[in-house]
Amino acid sequence: MSTYTYPYADTVAHLQSSDIRDLMKYAIRDDFVSFAGGMPNNHLFPVAEVEKIYHHLPQHVKELSFQYGPTTGYPPLVETLKKYMETKGISFDTHDLMVTTGSLQAIYIFTQLFVNPGDTILTENPSFIGALTLFKSFQADLIGIPMDKDGIIPEKLEEQYRQAVEQGKNVKFLYVIPNFHNPAGLIYNKERRRFILDFIKKHDLLLLEDDAYNELYLNENDKELTTPVLAMADNEVKNQIAYAGSFSKIMGPGFRLGWLIVPKGMFSHAEIIKQSLDACSPNLSQVIAHAFMDQGYMSKYLERIRPEYRLRRDLTLQAVKKYFPPEVKYVEPRGGFYIWFELPEGAEAKKVLDYALENGVVFVLGHSFDPDRKRQNTFRLAYSNVNPEDIDKAVKIIAEGIRKQLEKAK
Amino acid sequence: MSTYTYPYADTVAHLQSSDIRDLMKYAIRDDFVSFAGGMPNNHLFPVAEVEKIYHHLPQHVKELSFQYGPTTGYPPLVETLKKYMETKGISFDTHDLMVTTGSLQAIYIFTQLFVNPGDTILTENPSFIGALTLFKSFQADLIGIPMDKDGIIPEKLEEQYRQAVEQGKNVKFLYVIPNFHNPAGLIYNKERRRFILDFIKKHDLLLLEDDAYNELYLNENDKELTTPVLAMADNEVKNQIAYAGSFSKIMGPGFRLGWLIVPKGMFSHAEIIKQSLDACSPNLSQVIAHAFMDQGYMSKYLERIRPEYRLRRDLTLQAVKKYFPPEVKYVEPRGGFYIWFELPEGAEAKKVLDYALENGVVFVLGHSFDPDRKRQNTFRLAYSNVNPEDIDKAVKIIAEGIRKQLEKAK
Repeated sequence: MSTYTYPYADTVAHLQSSDIRDLMKYAIRDDFVSFAGGMPNNHLFPVAEVEKIYHHLPQHVKELSFQYGPTTGYPPLVETLKKYMETKGISFDTHDLMVTTGSLQAIYIFTQLFVNPGDTILTENPSFIGALTLFKSFQADLIGIPMDKDGIIPEKLEEQYRQAVEQGKNVKFLYVIPNFHNPAGLIYNKERRRFILDFIKKHDLLLLEDDAYNELYLNENDKELTTPVLAMADNEVKNQIAYAGSFSKIMGPGFRLGWLIVPKGMFSHAEIIKQSLDACSPNLSQVIAHAFMDQGYMSKYLERIRPEYRLRRDLTLQAVKKYFPPEVKYVEPRGGFYIWFELPEGAEAKKVLDYALENGVVFVLGHSFDPDRKRQNTFRLAYSNVNPEDIDKAVKIIAEGIRKQLEKAK
Repeated sequence: MSTYTYPYADTVAHLQSSDIRDLMKYAIRDDFVSFAGGMPNNHLFPVAEVEKIYHHLPQHVKELSFQYGPTTGYPPLVETLKKYMETKGISFDTHDLMVTTGSLQAIYIFTQLFVNPGDTILTENPSFIGALTLFKSFQADLIGIPMDKDGIIPEKLEEQYRQAVEQGKNVKFLYVIPNFHNPAGLIYNKERRRFILDFIKKHDLLLLEDDAYNELYLNENDKELTTPVLAMADNEVKNQIAYAGSFSKIMGPGFRLGWLIVPKGMFSHAEIIKQSLDACSPNLSQVIAHAFMDQGYMSKYLERIRPEYRLRRDLTLQAVKKYFPPEVKYVEPRGGFYIWFELPEGAEAKKVLDYALENGVVFVLGHSFDPDRKRQNTFRLAYSNVNPEDIDKAVKIIAEGIRKQLEKAK
């Protein structure tokens, strides 16, 4: 029976293994200090607030939360999200918004709208593992563009795009994460954001802006740095831009809620796709999310968690400065969950991870975030879901692993 | 700006309108008596039970409910579902189970596993509108096989399959809803279930069994009629069968939870697809669903709602017998939510609906459930979400519409 060969579809036959599963395996173990999963902190979720909110909802709203809802989202939540996005400079004269089952589904819908097998997607290198896996499930060719501390490198993007066109590739869109990048931990400066707009205008390309970490600036002054690329676009280029948002970092991933903003001309097609994916997103989650935003809990919650993440970032950076050899490169993150490290060429991050695992610490290899799966000398630390008191000791262990590896590599 | 032409993917370019949206438009209006949506009753949801369950969960489980979980599901829920499915005769020696974001996602994952554009799927005619829309989004060719009161008609299935093969079509699987069929309201008898097994074995085809209504038998004696086709399969044919289950009818659609059971050989591919769709299903919903089943609430809830649905079915059938002209054909449902009506050839159900809408009653045209979108003389009444006191009057209005249409059609 085990020899039965299933007639898998072409899009599936090539799919092999699961980086994400391997990653999660350690991320959820209690006996490791985990810098692995890109997860909010278990102990910081607004559990009490949400229970209180739900308890006080009118009976008919509680009943609604058990029922099917419109494909594009629970209408009060859609309205609240639109108002919220307007405060970030996004206008719904040209665009419309639908609720999605996590921001990954938003990325999925956009990809299904535009990508045929063999089409090319431009991404950053490194980029979000979930999106890369998703793009590959559409049999897309990925071109990963290098970044520096300010975002994607303009010359590299132009050059690699030109090469792709020369090779006859059908480039469909550019996918970027301008705010508190996963995994690179950086934020795009204004010039790079403007460059992205110029680039897609010049080459008539679509842009998918993933803004899952928008609210996770760690200093109040940095808020102004987070203006979405879509909000900076002029009317002419706007209709080439879609935007994905997420509740995972501002309420909790367990609700599986995100949103997709697309130009009005794309909306009904996006709705049909969403319909065939899961009919509608969980109404229970949506009813709670609406009340959470509408009753002012979200902003209070964000004010409460920013210092917590700031503390973890600061402790991690302190320990890194104390223990890591000076050859290890990284950018100090201004927000989000991540610090991205680059070992000298030739050093193997995998060996560092092996050492860390032996000593009860886990993190993620950069390899998984590389669209080309080539680079062996990078890794990511997520400081979001560690206990502050574990940080110094755990970073010290990683540093030991790095020193051993650097000695060997000499 | 509105003239910008998006370079949609081939799978999307042909998608046109949205039957489901049109259907939902009326289903959620308070000022109509609605036989439209295939929805559980708003006032019968286990709202109080769920709030109590959640309140008493340990803090660390509440925290987990806000977090990401494994792609294949919250492990305690997966275990509970397996035990539950074992009571229905399904063995996990040969199969494995994952939690999905509604049973529609289970159907989506199975379809993505096997269907390339242009492949053929055999369905019943009529069939579930959500699945039909989904299959079309994969650019599948659909062949709808007629049913009688006992299920799909064997001779028709053999004949239409043979024709498809002669035409060089690549038939990938057969999709059936053996229990309390949506929209046909019928239940397959044992012979037809066995025939399905013989058919897929003989032709080496895959089977997708959609069992969303399994628990909604309305007489205790009928429970034995609901044994899944998968549970009746011998070891040889089992590995050609997948099964989709749903929490929508046993807890509430607002949780967006279902499950997919596939032969072990398909499981890791199915997991990768699920990963790219939404990473994991809502943990909040899963934690609640687990406690709901594990603490014995589900079986009590089902005992409470069966008489409620039985009452609505009985009142609807009584009114139909009283008011409908004898030319209208239907099968009395033994469970589920639906009664399927067939007007004499030439009569237009659309005109009956127009009359009903003018008079404050709404239902769904059979047209939407027809893979070929040809039949104009059928419609579906869902008695699940109507108030008992509205039924007699509403059915009378539909009957008036039918009489007017039959007079015209003469």
